[in-house]
Amino acid sequence: MKAAFSLLLLLVTLSCALGKYIPKTGKRIPQTLSRGWGDQLIWAQTYEEALYWSRSKNKPLMVIFHLEDCPHSKALKKVFSEDNEIQKILDEDFVVLNLVYETTDKHLSPDGQYVPRIIFVDPSMTVRADVIGRYSNRMYAYEPSDAKILLDNMKKAKKLLKSEL
Amino acid sequence: MKAAFSLLLLLVTLSCALGKYIPKTGKRIPQTLSRGWGDQLIWAQTYEEALYWSRSKNKPLMVIFHLEDCPHSKALKKVFSEDNEIQKILDEDFVVLNLVYETTDKHLSPDGQYVPRIIFVDPSMTVRADVIGRYSNRMYAYEPSDAKILLDNMKKAKKLLKSEL
Repeated sequence: MKAAFSLLLLLVTLSCALGKYIPKTGKRIPQTLSRGWGDQLIWAQTYEEALYWSRSKNKPLMVIFHLEDCPHSKALKKVFSEDNEIQKILDEDFVVLNLVYETTDKHLSPDGQYVPRIIFVDPSMTVRADVIGRYSNRMYAYEPSDAKILLDNMKKAKKLLKSEL
Repeated sequence: MKAAFSLLLLLVTLSCALGKYIPKTGKRIPQTLSRGWGDQLIWAQTYEEALYWSRSKNKPLMVIFHLEDCPHSKALKKVFSEDNEIQKILDEDFVVLNLVYETTDKHLSPDGQYVPRIIFVDPSMTVRADVIGRYSNRMYAYEPSDAKILLDNMKKAKKLLKSEL
């Protein structure tokens, strides 16, 4: 009985050692597409994909530009991901994309490339440069205290430029 | 004692109910950037990002085009993700990107857009159209039994077009 148990233990140990690849620097936590901005949302991976979904579902697109080691991005992300009203509306009425790398499309940086920056795009593929926050020098920036403004802007973006395509 | 326990239970229940946003259709498993092609690898999100990393690290780029509901993609993914030699070399010597949506760059579909398809790109940003599998009608396709060919092709791709930039 004891021998059988030892054998079992050995087999378990061996199967672990022979298991999946583990990097030299140790096991990593798999990266998520949400990057912490809402694990329950369905995220597009690329801007092309997001535009496609926006057009075909006739839902506005929210693009979040951020950096994982930027304290302002992190602070906004915490409020954003914990705000159930924001999360619910995004899940039901928006296509969402978060990027840590700029695209080649200049329309996505109407007043420069900075983070955090939130740009809305209409299903007609028009960047909603009119949907802005409260900072005149960085019009698409939001601070953690700006959740209410962001919610208002989401409602603005939900009013589509062309109600019938 | 019993009352205290009941209260604790109530608090736990409440905190769950007041917790994070859960979609009407039920809790979802967060999407990973790996999409099952190697949870321990560090995946680029977009082609632009992947090219940037390839150039700056002077490592070749592997781009995998696939679809999550395609049985050929799934079968290759299983072999690919469980092959520790492939995973180790990719982790140490490559930049990796997997896409479920085609890019606008025609160079990434030398003989058409199909899945699964694996394209190598040199750090000089040259698509290695010469690194092909064994199917003349779909030159960048691999089947689960082609792991050895894929490994050989990875070794080919590791020989950079320009050894010094």
